[in-house]
Amino acid sequence: MSEFIYGHWSVMEALRAGRRTIEHLLITETVDARGIVSEIMAIATDKGVPVKRVPRRIIDDLAENANHQNMALRVSGYPYVEIEDVMALARKRDEKPFILLLDLLKDPQNVGALMRVADAVGVHGIIMQERRNVAVTPSVVNASSGAVEHLQVVQVTNLVQTMRDLKEQDVWMVGLDVGPNVPPFDKTNLNMSLGLVLGSEGEGLRRLVRDTCDLLLSLPMRGSVASLNVATVGSVALYAAWQAREWQGWTHA
Amino acid sequence: MSEFIYGHWSVMEALRAGRRTIEHLLITETVDARGIVSEIMAIATDKGVPVKRVPRRIIDDLAENANHQNMALRVSGYPYVEIEDVMALARKRDEKPFILLLDLLKDPQNVGALMRVADAVGVHGIIMQERRNVAVTPSVVNASSGAVEHLQVVQVTNLVQTMRDLKEQDVWMVGLDVGPNVPPFDKTNLNMSLGLVLGSEGEGLRRLVRDTCDLLLSLPMRGSVASLNVATVGSVALYAAWQAREWQGWTHA
Repeated sequence: MSEFIYGHWSVMEALRAGRRTIEHLLITETVDARGIVSEIMAIATDKGVPVKRVPRRIIDDLAENANHQNMALRVSGYPYVEIEDVMALARKRDEKPFILLLDLLKDPQNVGALMRVADAVGVHGIIMQERRNVAVTPSVVNASSGAVEHLQVVQVTNLVQTMRDLKEQDVWMVGLDVGPNVPPFDKTNLNMSLGLVLGSEGEGLRRLVRDTCDLLLSLPMRGSVASLNVATVGSVALYAAWQAREWQGWTHA
Repeated sequence: MSEFIYGHWSVMEALRAGRRTIEHLLITETVDARGIVSEIMAIATDKGVPVKRVPRRIIDDLAENANHQNMALRVSGYPYVEIEDVMALARKRDEKPFILLLDLLKDPQNVGALMRVADAVGVHGIIMQERRNVAVTPSVVNASSGAVEHLQVVQVTNLVQTMRDLKEQDVWMVGLDVGPNVPPFDKTNLNMSLGLVLGSEGEGLRRLVRDTCDLLLSLPMRGSVASLNVATVGSVALYAAWQAREWQGWTHA
């Protein structure tokens, strides 16, 4: 099944990553071929992808009126992988597994933002349930600035069962939670084989998911508004985990 | 000058904070007075704020078609404070100053997200330039989930001059930057009198702002997409700074 990816960075990263079958690149008739636009057109041509100029309203339709920045790329569906691929990447890099698990997140903006951070800190894979969690749609690709094109995402039918399987492979399941008796995240050395589990917007972790975690950690808060967006919580936790690994794999630019 | 705040949490926090003059609360004719809606109506009544039922299209107009969640609160403009108020709050809490400075941020979503985190970690104030930086508009209030209603925000005419003034008061200016030779943020003990400076989306810190910083720190990145959203960078840095203060002011729920 083919779909349309839109926006400068989504299109750029889909072309660069080259993991999807790419049919053609549509650009609005009126936009000047300069700057980032000309750069993207050059990469497309270099990869043998046909570039077509079309009326703006066509791209408006294909991108469902999202901010498409004058371009849409017709591609095959998102290339999900298997958990074995995630574990294999960790072994290949000679690193302890570093996995992000999403429990029924609904907002493409949040999922995209988390993907972008997951890419920045070098997770080996992201696992989410097939049903009731947002999939890797073009709007998630866009919200991730294209980062998800380079990531390994796994869809599973039962998140709890997957957590149990990972625990058997000695990956610790650490849930981000709130409430009394949940210690702050800096009280645990996160330099371990880690699956970081985030709950859905508003509802948090489902009971069975929470109960399946090896431990629960919280992000302290002292403000007047006692809640944070799940993408914020996840970003801080992902960086804390990577920092605990002493920025493994990072080389100064 | 009056304006309209919209959305459940914005309206709730504006009512709770009580810092603005509040004229009335408009609720759509059709929404049921239950759950969070009835809670907000009860708080309004308790504070002597008239509640009026109006056709939905009126609130659509007032909220400029944003996701208003069936309510709009007519209030006086955002109550900015002075830098002295920020320093006074630090003294009152017997804490080293903890300030967030924004250099020409343009996106209300980013500014709102940063405000929400600033509230969570207990900064004493947020400073931004009056011109070319987004102001505390109703969309910023909404993006902050109302957190900004409880925060001290200062608008200054010249951010660089303000940074110099703060340095004279022994507040360290720490800029978040990218590029070679910028050490990662965990190489410095951020438990100091701190002004954390964030640059604009895309452009980063202006040259003179960067040069006025006492030190520059970076968020490491190892991914394929070598950039992060400024709200993500700021969130991670604000939490790192608060963690360095050993979660000062936080009490377990």
